[in-house]
Amino acid sequence: MITMISLKEAAAYLQTNDNYIILTHQYPDGDTLGSAFGLCKMLQQIGKNARVLYNGQLQDRFAYLANGVSEQSFTKETVISVDVADKALLGELIEYSSRVELCIDHHSIHRQYAKRSYVDPTAAATAEIIYLIGELLGVEYTKDIADCVYTGVATDTGCFKFSNTTLQTHEIAGRMIQSGCDFARINKDMFDTITKAHIAIEQKALETLAYYVDGECAVMYTTKEMCTRCGATDDDIEGLSSVPRKIVGVRVGITIRQKGDDLYKISVRTNGGVNAAEICSIFGGGGHPAAAGCTIDGTLDKVIERLVAAAAVALKNSRD
Amino acid sequence: MITMISLKEAAAYLQTNDNYIILTHQYPDGDTLGSAFGLCKMLQQIGKNARVLYNGQLQDRFAYLANGVSEQSFTKETVISVDVADKALLGELIEYSSRVELCIDHHSIHRQYAKRSYVDPTAAATAEIIYLIGELLGVEYTKDIADCVYTGVATDTGCFKFSNTTLQTHEIAGRMIQSGCDFARINKDMFDTITKAHIAIEQKALETLAYYVDGECAVMYTTKEMCTRCGATDDDIEGLSSVPRKIVGVRVGITIRQKGDDLYKISVRTNGGVNAAEICSIFGGGGHPAAAGCTIDGTLDKVIERLVAAAAVALKNSRD
Repeated sequence: MITMISLKEAAAYLQTNDNYIILTHQYPDGDTLGSAFGLCKMLQQIGKNARVLYNGQLQDRFAYLANGVSEQSFTKETVISVDVADKALLGELIEYSSRVELCIDHHSIHRQYAKRSYVDPTAAATAEIIYLIGELLGVEYTKDIADCVYTGVATDTGCFKFSNTTLQTHEIAGRMIQSGCDFARINKDMFDTITKAHIAIEQKALETLAYYVDGECAVMYTTKEMCTRCGATDDDIEGLSSVPRKIVGVRVGITIRQKGDDLYKISVRTNGGVNAAEICSIFGGGGHPAAAGCTIDGTLDKVIERLVAAAAVALKNSRD
Repeated sequence: MITMISLKEAAAYLQTNDNYIILTHQYPDGDTLGSAFGLCKMLQQIGKNARVLYNGQLQDRFAYLANGVSEQSFTKETVISVDVADKALLGELIEYSSRVELCIDHHSIHRQYAKRSYVDPTAAATAEIIYLIGELLGVEYTKDIADCVYTGVATDTGCFKFSNTTLQTHEIAGRMIQSGCDFARINKDMFDTITKAHIAIEQKALETLAYYVDGECAVMYTTKEMCTRCGATDDDIEGLSSVPRKIVGVRVGITIRQKGDDLYKISVRTNGGVNAAEICSIFGGGGHPAAAGCTIDGTLDKVIERLVAAAAVALKNSRD
């Protein structure tokens, strides 16, 4: 039996029960971690037992989110998930999937799996919902809690840049600043910090940047050899996919990453009404209108040729 | 006779007089332009005559700020300046410097030149003050006004990233979103758009990136020949200076731009308590603790050697 509940009912559930295990999604990001640690500290503040299972290693840059959490041991567990849109995203925590009593999420595409779910797709981040639950629980927003809520809200909106940002998002961020959150340091770590390997692989990738279709399509690539030479991991290469689309006049930005001898992973990012998912679906991939992906076999030259041809069609379709 | 006035007095002055000429500072940015055009539209809405003198060419990316301004001709002029901290910054509008009736500014270092000034250094942007004046004037925040206020606030805070951001900054941004401002498009244009020449010169500059002082100092440079080859203007090179400091472990990021055969313009950006102004003062330059500049004569090798030596001293001093 699966039920959608209201925000008040979610808060009442947390008020009534105890011994919470809070799950994040796999490859945890700022919102799932900020929501989980923020909620954990709120629950501990109102006298509950709680701990976070954060799914894999906690990256150094997120370590501050755990500040102020008390270690608590308890056995009879109440399982909660935050920012987990589908049980398949529980990753190494999949064993808990049938035991989730309450799920709190903001994804517009949410596949219910918890016994009760509160899902608000108008929230820019799950951390926005956690803040609202904190209000209903009568929580005092300490610096440690504010750091968590702010991190979730800032990371899921690209620091308030993206169209999902609302009045409520800004109001919550403002209050977290008033509660003493270390926002300038958090923003520097989240948005203005890159590794030496990242900058090295970016330089190599930019060397390959080429324009097609009257400059409306930009393509750049990384090979396995380039990654080895730069010591670049998958984390370092993340973020490169957003570069080509930033260039003036470019409406289709394509980033190609070599995965095997003749195997390439493709990211497509688009502007101005060009359908990225349409381009990737030709190669058996998919995604969203402005961001999609696929995998293609073949030589690099041939892969680029096929992608540029697909981009040219999508560009033409966007004008029709 | 120069007077500091209150926000209410500034609003009352605008309510009482008419025929406003609004001046921006030279090399106008998002805050001076957003403030000027926002105020112009507010004044026109309450039945006043007003126009903006925007100091030089209005760049294409700022053209939308003028949307909704009515062309008005009038002779007896009341001169106002916004976001202009010193009359020397009036640039080509210097002829007006002795005629400024009211100056509205937020810079903490402000040299008074207007007959009356309202300066609030706790405001993250002058556009924050313009918003507050709009409230006192009873203005309705139309989309065209909201686009201006939002642009000023967002650009002067690095999209709410920097430490100058406050609760008030977020509250105003949120209200401008509610008033229909086109914030996602504005943010894309202001923060996520680069020219083809910019990306080309960035690639060339990254090729020169080198680390010194145990990786705590990063240096990169551009030569005149590189700029010519990439078709890069000063505008395209702007922004490169923020790159080296973003790298993990780097506390002194130095960017060197060739200006003449043996003449180099230097930007120093620092993290973690290293004094950038201390480094630049050795070469007759200056600036702020985290961002400073200077000019050095000599061969490129020698310039780098001298800068690295100065950086090593500043790094050592920061640890003492």
